[in-house]
Amino acid sequence: MKARVTVMLKQGVLDVQGEAVRHALGSLGFDGVAGVRQGKVIELDLTDTDASAAEARVQEMCDRLLANTVIESYRIEIV
Amino acid sequence: MKARVTVMLKQGVLDVQGEAVRHALGSLGFDGVAGVRQGKVIELDLTDTDASAAEARVQEMCDRLLANTVIESYRIEIV
Repeated sequence: MKARVTVMLKQGVLDVQGEAVRHALGSLGFDGVAGVRQGKVIELDLTDTDASAAEARVQEMCDRLLANTVIESYRIEIV
Repeated sequence: MKARVTVMLKQGVLDVQGEAVRHALGSLGFDGVAGVRQGKVIELDLTDTDASAAEARVQEMCDRLLANTVIESYRIEIV
């Protein structure tokens, strides 16, 4: 079973990577980019067979390691 | 219009971040994690109104800036 975790900075937290990308796109001549946010995606190969148990375990992984929940939010997809 | 770009290292390219996460999860007592791959996700706010034109433009952004296509693959979703 695979799980995909997407971790993004919360709204209101300055995203310097995203701003750098937006600026670089403008320098390359790409107009019409109003905003950019950059985050990370973590794909986990799990040996679990029960989807809901897997999701609960991945949520614990996020809270303990994968995301800094003070400034980041995360989304879990079981695929 | 929003576009979400997911950039991952290609299969066969050593993913040291993913390996570090897998090791750290093991140290925290999370068993049953067979593999971890880490990539990045870039969310773009576009002023485009035509989805297919937007997708073509985002593809060009990926090829020129957002992904290193020698070692990374990317996926574009228009949302």
